[in-house]
Amino acid sequence: MPVTSVNELKPGQEVDQVFLIRSKQIRTARNGSRYFTADLCDATGNVPARMWDASEVLLEALAEANFVRVRGRVELYREQTQVILASIRPAPQEEIDLERFLPHSPYDPQERLQKLKDLAESITNPHLQALLRAFFDDDEFVGRLTRCPAAVAYHHATIGGLIEHTASTAELAELICQQYPQVNRDMLMTGVILHDIGKTRELAYEQAFTYTVHGELVGHVVSGVLMIEDRVREMPDFPPELLDELRHVILSHHGEYEFGSPKLPMTREALALHYLDNLDAKMEAVTRAVEDTSAGDESWTEQLRMLRRRFYRGSSPAEESTE
Amino acid sequence: MPVTSVNELKPGQEVDQVFLIRSKQIRTARNGSRYFTADLCDATGNVPARMWDASEVLLEALAEANFVRVRGRVELYREQTQVILASIRPAPQEEIDLERFLPHSPYDPQERLQKLKDLAESITNPHLQALLRAFFDDDEFVGRLTRCPAAVAYHHATIGGLIEHTASTAELAELICQQYPQVNRDMLMTGVILHDIGKTRELAYEQAFTYTVHGELVGHVVSGVLMIEDRVREMPDFPPELLDELRHVILSHHGEYEFGSPKLPMTREALALHYLDNLDAKMEAVTRAVEDTSAGDESWTEQLRMLRRRFYRGSSPAEESTE
Amino acid sequence: MPVTSVNELKPGQEVDQVFLIRSKQIRTARNGSRYFTADLCDATGNVPARMWDASEVLLEALAEANFVRVRGRVELYREQTQVILASIRPAPQEEIDLERFLPHSPYDPQERLQKLKDLAESITNPHLQALLRAFFDDDEFVGRLTRCPAAVAYHHATIGGLIEHTASTAELAELICQQYPQVNRDMLMTGVILHDIGKTRELAYEQAFTYTVHGELVGHVVSGVLMIEDRVREMPDFPPELLDELRHVILSHHGEYEFGSPKLPMTREALALHYLDNLDAKMEAVTRAVEDTSAGDESWTEQLRMLRRRFYRGSSPAEESTE
Amino acid sequence: MPVTSVNELKPGQEVDQVFLIRSKQIRTARNGSRYFTADLCDATGNVPARMWDASEVLLEALAEANFVRVRGRVELYREQTQVILASIRPAPQEEIDLERFLPHSPYDPQERLQKLKDLAESITNPHLQALLRAFFDDDEFVGRLTRCPAAVAYHHATIGGLIEHTASTAELAELICQQYPQVNRDMLMTGVILHDIGKTRELAYEQAFTYTVHGELVGHVVSGVLMIEDRVREMPDFPPELLDELRHVILSHHGEYEFGSPKLPMTREALALHYLDNLDAKMEAVTRAVEDTSAGDESWTEQLRMLRRRFYRGSSPAEESTE
Amino acid sequence: MPVTSVNELKPGQEVDQVFLIRSKQIRTARNGSRYFTADLCDATGNVPARMWDASEVLLEALAEANFVRVRGRVELYREQTQVILASIRPAPQEEIDLERFLPHSPYDPQERLQKLKDLAESITNPHLQALLRAFFDDDEFVGRLTRCPAAVAYHHATIGGLIEHTASTAELAELICQQYPQVNRDMLMTGVILHDIGKTRELAYEQAFTYTVHGELVGHVVSGVLMIEDRVREMPDFPPELLDELRHVILSHHGEYEFGSPKLPMTREALALHYLDNLDAKMEAVTRAVEDTSAGDESWTEQLRMLRRRFYRGSSPAEESTE
Amino acid sequence: MPVTSVNELKPGQEVDQVFLIRSKQIRTARNGSRYFTADLCDATGNVPARMWDASEVLLEALAEANFVRVRGRVELYREQTQVILASIRPAPQEEIDLERFLPHSPYDPQERLQKLKDLAESITNPHLQALLRAFFDDDEFVGRLTRCPAAVAYHHATIGGLIEHTASTAELAELICQQYPQVNRDMLMTGVILHDIGKTRELAYEQAFTYTVHGELVGHVVSGVLMIEDRVREMPDFPPELLDELRHVILSHHGEYEFGSPKLPMTREALALHYLDNLDAKMEAVTRAVEDTSAGDESWTEQLRMLRRRFYRGSSPAEESTE
Repeated sequence: MPVTSVNELKPGQEVDQVFLIRSKQIRTARNGSRYFTADLCDATGNVPARMWDASEVLLEALAEANFVRVRGRVELYREQTQVILASIRPAPQEEIDLERFLPHSPYDPQERLQKLKDLAESITNPHLQALLRAFFDDDEFVGRLTRCPAAVAYHHATIGGLIEHTASTAELAELICQQYPQVNRDMLMTGVILHDIGKTRELAYEQAFTYTVHGELVGHVVSGVLMIEDRVREMPDFPPELLDELRHVILSHHGEYEFGSPKLPMTREALALHYLDNLDAKMEAVTRAVEDTSAGDESWTEQLRMLRRRFYRGSSPAEESTE
Repeated sequence: MPVTSVNELKPGQEVDQVFLIRSKQIRTARNGSRYFTADLCDATGNVPARMWDASEVLLEALAEANFVRVRGRVELYREQTQVILASIRPAPQEEIDLERFLPHSPYDPQERLQKLKDLAESITNPHLQALLRAFFDDDEFVGRLTRCPAAVAYHHATIGGLIEHTASTAELAELICQQYPQVNRDMLMTGVILHDIGKTRELAYEQAFTYTVHGELVGHVVSGVLMIEDRVREMPDFPPELLDELRHVILSHHGEYEFGSPKLPMTREALALHYLDNLDAKMEAVTRAVEDTSAGDESWTEQLRMLRRRFYRGSSPAEESTE
Repeated sequence: MPVTSVNELKPGQEVDQVFLIRSKQIRTARNGSRYFTADLCDATGNVPARMWDASEVLLEALAEANFVRVRGRVELYREQTQVILASIRPAPQEEIDLERFLPHSPYDPQERLQKLKDLAESITNPHLQALLRAFFDDDEFVGRLTRCPAAVAYHHATIGGLIEHTASTAELAELICQQYPQVNRDMLMTGVILHDIGKTRELAYEQAFTYTVHGELVGHVVSGVLMIEDRVREMPDFPPELLDELRHVILSHHGEYEFGSPKLPMTREALALHYLDNLDAKMEAVTRAVEDTSAGDESWTEQLRMLRRRFYRGSSPAEESTE
Repeated sequence: MPVTSVNELKPGQEVDQVFLIRSKQIRTARNGSRYFTADLCDATGNVPARMWDASEVLLEALAEANFVRVRGRVELYREQTQVILASIRPAPQEEIDLERFLPHSPYDPQERLQKLKDLAESITNPHLQALLRAFFDDDEFVGRLTRCPAAVAYHHATIGGLIEHTASTAELAELICQQYPQVNRDMLMTGVILHDIGKTRELAYEQAFTYTVHGELVGHVVSGVLMIEDRVREMPDFPPELLDELRHVILSHHGEYEFGSPKLPMTREALALHYLDNLDAKMEAVTRAVEDTSAGDESWTEQLRMLRRRFYRGSSPAEESTE
Repeated sequence: MPVTSVNELKPGQEVDQVFLIRSKQIRTARNGSRYFTADLCDATGNVPARMWDASEVLLEALAEANFVRVRGRVELYREQTQVILASIRPAPQEEIDLERFLPHSPYDPQERLQKLKDLAESITNPHLQALLRAFFDDDEFVGRLTRCPAAVAYHHATIGGLIEHTASTAELAELICQQYPQVNRDMLMTGVILHDIGKTRELAYEQAFTYTVHGELVGHVVSGVLMIEDRVREMPDFPPELLDELRHVILSHHGEYEFGSPKLPMTREALALHYLDNLDAKMEAVTRAVEDTSAGDESWTEQLRMLRRRFYRGSSPAEESTE
Repeated sequence: MPVTSVNELKPGQEVDQVFLIRSKQIRTARNGSRYFTADLCDATGNVPARMWDASEVLLEALAEANFVRVRGRVELYREQTQVILASIRPAPQEEIDLERFLPHSPYDPQERLQKLKDLAESITNPHLQALLRAFFDDDEFVGRLTRCPAAVAYHHATIGGLIEHTASTAELAELICQQYPQVNRDMLMTGVILHDIGKTRELAYEQAFTYTVHGELVGHVVSGVLMIEDRVREMPDFPPELLDELRHVILSHHGEYEFGSPKLPMTREALALHYLDNLDAKMEAVTRAVEDTSAGDESWTEQLRMLRRRFYRGSSPAEESTE
C-alpha cells in the first residue's frame, strides 16, 4: 500500500503507514466508555485519529513514541476527516522515512539553483565570477546548498529554504540594480549568492532543524567568510581590496551589531544586501503566517517569532479589486 | 548681465551678481599687505574669492550679510578658479533669488509626477483610485508635492526631493509586486504614493529647509492621515475597513516606535512599504555622500547623519569589471 | 428566585442560577469515592463547589462550558463558604447575563460624567468649550464613554473604568492648576477630558475586554485625534493653531515613543497631561493590587503587568498612626 | 554709590561697581577706530558695554578676569540700554559679592521653610513626626536646606531652589492625598520632605553650582538615607519596619535604575513621590524655559538639558480665554 | 537507622527516613495494575521511587506534602538505582532536618573565614584594619556570614556560598594587586571583604533561599553601607574621605545602574572590585552548569539564568593535553 | 647638536631641532609690541615658546606646518621652562623623525615578547603550541606585534601598546588558572596570546594611530581568525573541534554584540578571556588618566572616552598606609 500524505487522505480510504503522533489522550465518551485520541501528522498537515475502547495501558505503551505505525480507515465526522484506528504501535526506526515529516520549500531547488548559476554567469568581474564557479562546481557544497533550510524557525524553515531565499534575494537584487545604477552589480550579486552559505555548516537538518556545534561557536556569518577564504586561497590573483569588500558585504549583512554582524554595512552594496535579505526573510515569514489559517484566528495570525507581533490577515486582493 | 551658476564660472569672465557668502576673513599676505577672502556659493557649489588691500572694516560691514552683490573677474590661480573682487556689499532683499541657493533634485518633478499618476491609474480598487485622483486633481497640493524636499537633512533634502523619493519608492513597489504576488498591489501602491504627503505640511522650504509649527506638533505621519481623512469625507462609500488598512500603512511606515510610528507594521503591505521607504531613503543618502568628493577623504565619506557612520567609496564599478 | 452575587452567598441559602465556572476536576475522597469540584465565579468573586459521587462523564459533559446553571445549597466547611451541588449543566446562551460577569468600576459612571461636564463648563475658551459640548451632546458617544474600560488589563480594566480614570485625572488637573498657575487650564482640561476617547473605538467590552481591528490598526491615540477632527469640521471658526496644540496634547500623552506616542510632549499642558495620566493609571493599578488579598502573599502583591514588579502591602495607615 | 542690579539700570545713571564679564572683544568701527565691547552680567541679566578707542592691550589686561570693576554711564542706543565705560579693571577678590551673581529662587526660603514645618506638624505618626522635628531643630541643617539649589543645571538651579522644590512637591502631595485616600499620608509627606536632603551634602553652591567629592562618590540618594540614619540612631523606639519603608521611599525616588535609584518604587507612597518629584522638577524647568525669552526663538525655547528637546511657547492663557 | 544521603544509597539497603518529594504520579503498568512513582530528593541528588498497587487515594493523601517519611528498599532496575516503597506518609514538621535539603558550598566555611581574617590582618591602613576586625569580632555577624548564600539562584546559591564567593574574590584581588601595583591594596581588599555583607540581611536561607522584606526594600548594596556606618560610628577618628571612598566602592560594585548600583565605579579600586566580583560570580555559575551533567545535553548546559545563554561543555582539559 | 626630548630641556640650553607645533598665535604685549607664541611638543610633553616682534606674516608662513625646525634658547620664566625662538620655519619632510612624536609603551617590547614566548612554551596541547610557534617564528609578524598600539585612543594607545596589553593579560590568565583549576589553561592562554593579533592589520601606526581600510571593513576580531586560518592550513592534523573552540574564543572576546563580537562567550575560556581583556584595558586607561595630572583637575581626571566618566584621583596608597 503506497503512503498517502495527510493532506490527501480521502474518506473511505484504508491506511497502513507511519505517522508522526501528537496530543495522545484517553477520553471518556458520553456513554461512559473510554477511547484514545491523537493527532497524526506529516509535513503536509494533521488529522485527528480515534481508537475505541482503549485504556491508559495504550497510552503507556505509546509514551515514548514520536512515530507510530497505524492501521485504520479514514472517515468523515461532522464534516471533518478523521482516522478510526484498528491498531497502533511504535514505529520501528527502519520504517520511518524522515523526509515525509520535514517541511519542504514550495520551490524546486534545482530550478532555483539554475537561476543562481545563470545570475552568476552574468557577472563581469572575472575574479568574482571565478569564485562563484568554484562554489557551483563543488557537488558536495551544491548538495547541501539545495537542501539546507534558511533558518531553524524564523523564516524559510524548510528543506530547500536556503536556496529559495537566496534565489529570491538575488532576483530582488537584479531588480534593484535597475533602480540604482550606481550600485556595483557584480559585488552585490556575488554578496547575495554567498551571504548565507555559512548556513550549510551552521545548521543540521537531517532529522530536525537545529544548530551544529560549529554553528553555535562560529556562526554562519563568519563561517561563510571562512568558506570564501578556502576558495580564494586557490586563486592567487584575487585582488586583496576586492576580497576585503566581499568579506565586508558578508560580515555586515545582518545590519546591526545586536543581530550578530561584527561590522555595520559601510558600502552601498553591503547596505543594499542587508535590506534585501531582511525584506525577503520577513515577507516570506509573514506570508506563510497569513496563509496558515490553522494558527491564530480569523483576522490575526499567531505571534511571529521573528517580528514579535501578530499580523492582520486583511481582505484578499481579489475581493478588493472587484467591489 | 545674466546670472552664471558657480559650477559654470569660466576664467576671464566678468561677474556682477548675488552670491551666498561663507567663511569671510581678513588675512595677511607674505608682503605684509592685508586682503579679504571668502567663499561664494550657490546650490551648484562654492568658489573662493579675494579682494586685495582690504581691512577689518570690510569684515564689519559684511558682518550680518548672508547674501552679497559682487563685481569682479574670474581668474585661475594654481589651477583653481577664483573670483578677484572689485566690489562687494550686502545684497538688498529684492535682489536675492532664493531659488538659486536651494539644492534641487536631479530629476524633473513633472516627469516624476506623471510617473506617479500613471501608477495611480493602474490601481484597480475603485475607492483607492478615486482617492488618489482627488489628490492629483488638487493643483495646490500638487504644487507643494512637486516642490517639497523629503527631509530637512537626512535624505533627498532638495527642492523636488519628496516627489523624487515617492516616485522611486513607487517604482520599487512595482518591482516588488512581481516578486511577491501575494502582496495587495493596490494597497501597497496607494500607501507608497501617500506615505509622505504629510511632509508638504510638516516642512517649510521657501528660504531654507525647516519644520513648521504644525510639523513639530503633529508630524507628517499623522498629518498625512488627516489629509486622507479630508478627502475620504467626500467619499461616502469608502469602506471603513479599507480606510483602517490604509491609515495603518501610513501610521506604521517608520517601522519602529522610536522613529515616531504609533503602530508597528501589521500587514504585508505596511511591512513592504516600510522596507522600501527605508531602502530608497538610505540608498539616496549614501549615494549622494559617496559621490560628493568635496567632503570626507579619498576612501571615506563624511559621517552620515542618518546612519551615524562613514561609508567606503570603494572602487568604481567600471574599473572593477574591466580588470 | 433572584440572583445572588458570589460575595453575598450565605450558608443555608438555596441557589438556582448561572455562574462562570473554572478549575473543573474529578477528585478522589479518602473513602475512595469520587467527587466533582470547581470554582463558581462572577465579577464579585469565586466560591468553591462540590458534587458528590461524580465521574469523568460529568467532566466531559461540561468540557466546553464556560457558564453553567447550578442548583444547590450554600454550606460552611472549615469556616469557608462552599456550594454543594444538586445539579449542574451548561447554561443556554439566553440565560447568560454577561453584565454579572464583567468587573465594574466602583464609581457611578453617571456621577463621574456629571463631574466631567461641570469641568467642561468651567472652560473659558469658547472653541474648546464648544468642542467638549459637541461630544457630551452626542448620546451614542456618551453611552460608550460611560461603559468602556480604560484598558484590557493594565489599569481600570472594568466596565466604567474609562470614565473613572478620565474624571480622576481631570480632578488631578484641577488641583495641579492651583499649583502651577502658568499652565493653560483650558487646554489642559480639554486635553484630559479627550485624551482617551479613542479607547471607545479601540476596545470591545461586551463579552470580554479585547481590541477591535480598528484599535489594533490605528490605536486610540490617533483615533482620538480623528474623533476630534470629525467635530471640528463642523466648527469653521476653530483656530488652526489651537487645533494643532490640542492634537499635540492628545498625540503625545503617552510621553515616550516606545509607548506609541508619535510625538513627545512639547508644551507644558502636554507634559502635565502625560504625568497626571500616568500617575492616575498607576495609582489605580497598584491600589487594586495591594487591596486584592486573593493574589500574591501576605506582604507582597502579585507581579503587576504594567510595572513588571510586585508591590509591598506595607502596614496600614491606621495602625501606623495609633502606635 | 549703591549697587544697581542689571535689570534696574536706567539711562543717564552713573555706575561704579563690579560685574561678571563675558564676550570680551576688540572691534573696528566704520570710521576705522577700534573699540572694546563686552557683556556685563549679574544674576538678573546682561547689559552690553562699550569703551571707545580701545586696543588689544586692554583685552590682554582683562584676559584672566571674570569679574571687573567698571566706571561709566548708562545710555540708550537703538532703544537698547548699554553702558559706556570710562574705566574697567579686574575686580579685586575682596570687592566681589558672589551673592549678586548667583541666581536666586523667586520664593522666600523662610516662608517655604515654614510651610514645610507646618506640614511636618500635621503628621500623626509620632516617630515620623519626631524625626522631622529633629531635622528642623538643627540650625546648621536648616541653613543649608534653605540655601542649597535643587540641581546644578537641570531644574531649580538657584539659591533656595531646593526648598522651593521640596515645598512645592509637598503641596502637590497634600493635594494628591485628597485624591487617593488609600495613600499613607504620613509616609508620603515624610518622604517628600526628606527625599532630597542629601543634596545639602552633594552640592557646593558658594561660588558656582557644582558637586562635592562626597556627592560624586556617594550621591544624594544614599546620602539622604545616611542623614536619616544619624537621626534615627538617637530614637531607640523607631520601628525597624517603618525605617525600612522610609529608606525605600528615599532610595527609589528617582524611579528607574538608570537615574541612579538602587531600588524601584514598590510601595504606593514611593510611587507617588517619584511621580510628584518628577512632575514638579519638569514643570519648573519647562516654565522657566518658556518664560526665558532671551534664549530660543519666538515660538520655541532652547533645547532643555533635562528633557532633550525644545518646548513650544504656544499662545498665552490670557489671550486664549478672551478671544 | 542513620540517614543516608541520596548520592550514597546502595542497592540492597533498607531506608526509613525523610526525603523531599517531587513529581508524584499514579501510572498504569503494562499488566493494567496501577502504581505510584515520585522522585525522592535531598541536596545531593534525586532517586526515583515506586510503590506497587497504589491508587489516586495515595496521591490525594500526599497532595500537600513536600517532605515525606518513607520506608523501603533500594533496588537496581535497568542499571539505575530506585527505591521500592513499603510505606510513605507526610513527614511531621519535627522530623524534617532542613539542613539536609539545602545545597551546601563545597568549601569549608571556617577555612574560608580564616582566609579572610588573614587577608584582613595584612591590611596596613589602621582604620580599615580596625573596621574589619570589628566585623570579625562580632560572632552573630560571623555566624550569618559563614552560612548565607551569595544569591537566591544566579551564583553560589548554597549554604556557605557567600563566604566562598567573598574569599575567592579576595584571592583574586590579592593576585591582581601584583599585576597592578598602583591599586590601593588596602582599599581594594577592604572593599572585597565587605562588598556583599548586606546579603546577610537581604537573604533568608533557613528553609529556602528568598529575599527578606528589608532586602527587597533596601537591597544589599545600600544595606552593606548601613552596616559599615554602624561600625564607623564607634570609630571617631575614621577619616571622612576614607569613608566616602569605601562607601563608593560598595555602592558601585554592580558596575552599571541597571544592576542596582546608584553610582558607577569612579576609582581604580571600585572598578577592579566590580570586575573581580563579576568574574568570580560568572566563573562559578558557568563551572557549576558545565559540571552538572543532569541538566542540558551532552554538549550544552541548560540556559543559565544569569547569562541568558547555554554554555558549551567542550572537551575536558585532561583529554586535550594528552593527545 | 643632538636632539633633546621636551621633558629634558634645561634652562640655558641652546636648541636647534624639529618639534611638533600646536596653538600658534600672535599676541600683544603690555607695551604694545606683538609676539608669537606656540607650544612645542614631542611624545614626552609640551613646552611653550615665544618669538619677539613677530606679526601675522609669520602665522601665515606657518599656517600649514605641523612640524617646525626651531633655533632658540631655553629660559626660565615665572618658574616655568620656555623656549625663546631665534628662528622658526616649517620642517622639511626629511628632517622629521616621526618616532620622536608618537607615544611609546613604558615596557620593553622585547622583554614582553619573551614573556609571551615563555608562556607559549608552557602549553601542553601540541597543536596549540605548534600554532603559537608558527606565529612567533614569523619575523614580519613579530615585528608588527611588538610595535603596534592596542587601540587608536581608548587604551594602550602607544607604540608597543599591543604587546604590553597582550602580555599583561597573559599574566592575569596565568594567575586566574591558579584560582579556577577547571579552566582549560592551554585554550585560555592560546586565546589570550592571539586575541588581538588582528590589530596588526587593523591599525596603521607609522605617522599617527588610525584604521586601515582592511581594519574598517573586516575588523580585528575576524581578521585575527583569518590569520589563524592561514597558519592552521599548514597543520593538517589540527583537530577541527579544537579549531572551532579557538575561533570561538577569539570571535567572542568583546563579550557583547554591541562591541562587535559576532558571538557571545559560550565556553569558560571565552568568558574568562573576555573579563581579563576588559579588566586589563580599563585598568591601563584609568591608571594612565589618574596619573596624567596635566588633564582634569586636582581631584578628578578628564572624562575617559572608553568609560564615559571621570575618575577620582583619591589619596595615594603610600599616604594612606602611614597615617
